Amino acid sequence: MHETLTVELGSRTYPIYIGNDTFSHENFLTQHIKGKQVFIVSNATVAKLYMPALLKVLNTVYQADTYLIPDGEQYKTLETYSRVIDELMRKRHNRSTTLIALGGGVIGDITGFVAATYQRGVGFLQIPTTLLAQVDSSVGGKTGVNHPDGKNMIGAFYQPSSVFIDVDALRSLPEREFSAGLAEVVKYGVIWDAGFFSWLEGNMQALLAKDRSALVTAIKMSCKIKALIVSEDEREEGVRAILNFGHTFGHALERMTRYTQFLHGEAVSIGMVMAADLSRRLGWLSCDDVSRLENLLEAGGLPTKFGQPINTTEMLSSMGMDKKVVDGKLRLVLAKTLGSAQIVESVDSQMLRDALISNV
Amino acid sequence: MHETLTVELGSRTYPIYIGNDTFSHENFLTQHIKGKQVFIVSNATVAKLYMPALLKVLNTVYQADTYLIPDGEQYKTLETYSRVIDELMRKRHNRSTTLIALGGGVIGDITGFVAATYQRGVGFLQIPTTLLAQVDSSVGGKTGVNHPDGKNMIGAFYQPSSVFIDVDALRSLPEREFSAGLAEVVKYGVIWDAGFFSWLEGNMQALLAKDRSALVTAIKMSCKIKALIVSEDEREEGVRAILNFGHTFGHALERMTRYTQFLHGEAVSIGMVMAADLSRRLGWLSCDDVSRLENLLEAGGLPTKFGQPINTTEMLSSMGMDKKVVDGKLRLVLAKTLGSAQIVESVDSQMLRDALISNV
Repeated sequence: MHETLTVELGSRTYPIYIGNDTFSHENFLTQHIKGKQVFIVSNATVAKLYMPALLKVLNTVYQADTYLIPDGEQYKTLETYSRVIDELMRKRHNRSTTLIALGGGVIGDITGFVAATYQRGVGFLQIPTTLLAQVDSSVGGKTGVNHPDGKNMIGAFYQPSSVFIDVDALRSLPEREFSAGLAEVVKYGVIWDAGFFSWLEGNMQALLAKDRSALVTAIKMSCKIKALIVSEDEREEGVRAILNFGHTFGHALERMTRYTQFLHGEAVSIGMVMAADLSRRLGWLSCDDVSRLENLLEAGGLPTKFGQPINTTEMLSSMGMDKKVVDGKLRLVLAKTLGSAQIVESVDSQMLRDALISNV
Repeated sequence: MHETLTVELGSRTYPIYIGNDTFSHENFLTQHIKGKQVFIVSNATVAKLYMPALLKVLNTVYQADTYLIPDGEQYKTLETYSRVIDELMRKRHNRSTTLIALGGGVIGDITGFVAATYQRGVGFLQIPTTLLAQVDSSVGGKTGVNHPDGKNMIGAFYQPSSVFIDVDALRSLPEREFSAGLAEVVKYGVIWDAGFFSWLEGNMQALLAKDRSALVTAIKMSCKIKALIVSEDEREEGVRAILNFGHTFGHALERMTRYTQFLHGEAVSIGMVMAADLSRRLGWLSCDDVSRLENLLEAGGLPTKFGQPINTTEMLSSMGMDKKVVDGKLRLVLAKTLGSAQIVESVDSQMLRDALISNV
């Protein structure tokens, strides 16, 4: 059982298969592999669960090599990238090879960047196994690694030729990581679709129970909304920025806590509440809207407050280093209503400080 | 005095200005710079000659930072790339920054790859100061660095927003490097334009004398031919491969001599004679055609023989490692006539060996 979503990007249009059992069928995968070599990048945890099934499909038809990278954002570096390249060279993968990212966002981002740049670009398939990767990395073509001084500072826009989402993979995902993924799902409701936001309010328990049908709906809606936005602005020159709702705050929180305290989705959850609070101060959202958002995030098992005193000066400086700054001007994505977002070029800095301190 | 050539690539169309005094006019450069920051990458030799003039134009209008990298192909590595990124971070360059490559091919390739991948892509201008860079790197968007096991194994296709070619810069270029650039100029005649080949036979002395008008003609024709080919096949999936005429042989010669004996253009010169000899064995070129090519290359100050015993097995293996191999099949670019090229999927290996040993 699966549904297919097509991401329309001209010559780079590709399908996302969402359901269960999506990548263990040979014809599914092989129709998207052009050459005779595949190279699967994963980590030990994920590989243990899914690599045997995947290799069973691929081993007889292709030169199938695998490479495991350590788990965690701290390994999303140019050094890890370089090691993957070394291994591709060592195993003599040519320009017709296809890279397969089997795992979460870190695996997808690194593997995608390798695919974008190995011999100036080779084939790329994604098998995202975390909710965050399924609803975020599946669409948009953002690939890359971190720099010691900033996240995702090195990378490329590179589209996969297809994405295989198996919702059953979420059953083995730790609850905390599942919730972190839900933050992005909620985000799509806030920035684009009031109906989807309401649907989430009614179906959060089914999602937490890993109900297959609810998961397929939530993931498909998330990918669809992201695809709509990305197809209008593939290289993030305009409207695409609304996908960063909560992220400028979230990134700053992650940076200030040195990426040790929050999962990305958790920081985004708190960041969205800060952004919503600022939207309320501008007269856009009502108090009730902000509460609905907080309640939905909490129902999803997410934090909505920073939980400790905040140094607003440090936080603002940290936000200023964010790459979403254009020529020194701080651009923020705020919510016009629950279901629509707006990019704001300048915000009263006292109002911003107030929104920060009232959400610690 | 300058001429303008437009490289037609849809939304990535850009101009190449060819003449003298092309980059010291403020309006020339500034119309192609969008943000408020520029970052000029060069090497010590080139910077000494041109950086002051360039900074004079840019310093008053932009945050203009400079970064010098060591000269030579051996520094075209992921490590140098990483250091340029570090410096961009350190000087807080944002997504609106523009990188300027001031120098030869190594500078252009590294800087282009940084521009392609810093924050997933920033502005990129090229000021090529060697003949090779002017007629090769100006068009095609190939950027990248070498891997210890192979040239240009890491990189991206990324177009500059404009290219500024100053033919007077060639007066300070060492003769040997100038000649190496001529190899690529001759190549364009062989693969595409018999008339241009004849023109080169009549104007080689003027070129060697750095006659401004002859240089503008030769560079413009070269860029024009390359632009025609690249616009048909931006990502090198078909016809673009003919630009590799002589290169599969040349790269193997460079590799076998560990990149110490030949400049790239010199290896390509010998490689083109090998390819021409093989074309003759297939009955395509006449003996006279091959002689004309050898004579033209020699008139340009280029080697046409390897000059030492050749281990054909090592050479063939070295050619097989070349990335222009598709699924293990050796594709070679040969000359159908002087003025047209053809991609050949399989060549009799004895004939290939004969062509190699008769050109040592």
